[in-house]
Amino acid sequence: MTYNIAVAGAGGAVGRTLVRVLEERDFPVSRLVLLATSRTAGTGVDFRGEKLAIEPVRPEAFVGIDLAFFATPTEVSRGLVPEAVRQGAVVVDKSSAYREDPEVPLVVPEVNPEVLEGHRGVIANPNCSTIQLVVALSPLASLAPLKRVVVATYQSVSGTGREAVEELRLQTRAVLEGKQAVPQVYPRPIAFNLLPHIDAFSADGYTKEERKLVTETRKIMGRPDLAISATTVRVPVEVGHSEAVWVETERPVEPETYREALAQAPGVLVMDDPGRGVYPTPLDAAGRDEVLVGRIRRDPSVASGLVFWVVADNLRKGAATNAVQIAEELLTRGLL
Amino acid sequence: MTYNIAVAGAGGAVGRTLVRVLEERDFPVSRLVLLATSRTAGTGVDFRGEKLAIEPVRPEAFVGIDLAFFATPTEVSRGLVPEAVRQGAVVVDKSSAYREDPEVPLVVPEVNPEVLEGHRGVIANPNCSTIQLVVALSPLASLAPLKRVVVATYQSVSGTGREAVEELRLQTRAVLEGKQAVPQVYPRPIAFNLLPHIDAFSADGYTKEERKLVTETRKIMGRPDLAISATTVRVPVEVGHSEAVWVETERPVEPETYREALAQAPGVLVMDDPGRGVYPTPLDAAGRDEVLVGRIRRDPSVASGLVFWVVADNLRKGAATNAVQIAEELLTRGLL
Repeated sequence: MTYNIAVAGAGGAVGRTLVRVLEERDFPVSRLVLLATSRTAGTGVDFRGEKLAIEPVRPEAFVGIDLAFFATPTEVSRGLVPEAVRQGAVVVDKSSAYREDPEVPLVVPEVNPEVLEGHRGVIANPNCSTIQLVVALSPLASLAPLKRVVVATYQSVSGTGREAVEELRLQTRAVLEGKQAVPQVYPRPIAFNLLPHIDAFSADGYTKEERKLVTETRKIMGRPDLAISATTVRVPVEVGHSEAVWVETERPVEPETYREALAQAPGVLVMDDPGRGVYPTPLDAAGRDEVLVGRIRRDPSVASGLVFWVVADNLRKGAATNAVQIAEELLTRGLL
Repeated sequence: MTYNIAVAGAGGAVGRTLVRVLEERDFPVSRLVLLATSRTAGTGVDFRGEKLAIEPVRPEAFVGIDLAFFATPTEVSRGLVPEAVRQGAVVVDKSSAYREDPEVPLVVPEVNPEVLEGHRGVIANPNCSTIQLVVALSPLASLAPLKRVVVATYQSVSGTGREAVEELRLQTRAVLEGKQAVPQVYPRPIAFNLLPHIDAFSADGYTKEERKLVTETRKIMGRPDLAISATTVRVPVEVGHSEAVWVETERPVEPETYREALAQAPGVLVMDDPGRGVYPTPLDAAGRDEVLVGRIRRDPSVASGLVFWVVADNLRKGAATNAVQIAEELLTRGLL
């Protein structure tokens, strides 16, 4: 059995990675349609030895499509996802358009695949920083209920898109040549700098990115009451998001017990032997599908707490790979 | 009244900044002696329009010196600070050699200048990441007792020294040219990457840097029992350390109340209007003496908590400026 697949937003960083991951994982594709807004339409993307042209995204493009991946801005998803569903496609959407909708499953296959049952045509793919967090939290939650989570993120520029990667490179080159870094994508220079600012600010002082990390983690973990606080920061790294995480649990969990649970958990790679220089960095995560966890230690500042460090490729597990894994889970469960 | 001053470690990043800060703040210097190990001895440093040669550091160099600033590695301080004191100098030492010694005052002038009274010749200058943290915590502690502090750091390479700044630039240039980043100073590439690893690892999984942040904060704030946990991370930034901070207090403190207390506090610059793009970044802090604080907001994950973001120039307030401020305080109190 093979399927007609569409990728909307195929010209972007996540869209291109999606096409690569579909090929790598040998997804049962019969026809692959690549779609994008006018800006990238016309350029080609390699798939199974062929160069596929990106077509302009239009509602009619979804006729005959079984499964559509959306890697588009939220406004684009809001407009076109309902069209794709109307044409009969099941949609896995990367934008934040549907994530908080109680009728839409928000899925990380290692954590909550069961919520795919009864989907109504749209499945939301969580935010990159949320995905790697819940993959690391889930094995801990099965050892002891989580009481409170504190997260500081170190997020790479590819999370913003290809133009941000270009901006980092251009600004960095300029600074090395003694010139000024000219910000265009970000409000301030990102070369040799960092910004405690991802997405828009709300009146309460939090950014939308921080709010997403809180609300999405609660929804995926089925813990609407979970106490969680985040500060999200953009750093001058191209690929790979990192997170410093503090978790209080209802009962004490030994670092070694958590380490063993992680080692058994799907999609996790434990890199935790710091005395021998073994801990994850963004460069270790880039190009991989696992969530890397290291620096697991006791938190002596609370009765029952652990501290650890989580790194993942934000374009792959944080976006494309997770989307394709959702699709694979739909197939396994006969939900397509 | 003027004084004979020595700067040991004058060839390094902090030593050079010390000489600049002494000049900027018009410190009452009669004679300035610059000292360093053989590697940088012989090179010159500008001071008040003159190029002063760096002399090799030897015990005899401290004869006739009233005040000696040490910006040397811990082992060098351990060997030479007692010599300088024996020769009659008062020493302000930047290394970690004496910081935990209960007989040695560990001082941030905005926070605990009174402990300078009764010093025995050595005053310890705290670690860079500690200084900016306690300057931000102190006004909050005067509003409500602190219960627990959680800190994630984003520390620039200049904290390691000039050779690390050079390594970041060389590696960055190499990566932009499609070449390999070759690590020498750090165990892994730092260009477009980050390392959750500053200083050596202990058996409990924490680094020495993390331990310093805990023990020094407790000592300076006079709170040996303070619950505090840190993750310290090296980022590809040249100058300026940033910290994401969560504080639980015994009583609720409104963000606005803390903001007002900070605005009155010495050595602090509040940059907190995120809706208008006002928040501190390392580039804002570089070259300044204040500790910049922004992104102050309520922490809804605890009964009484605040979250904020603290940035400072690690070579200036985190090192040289704090040392010179200690010396100024010694003069004011007639303790030299």
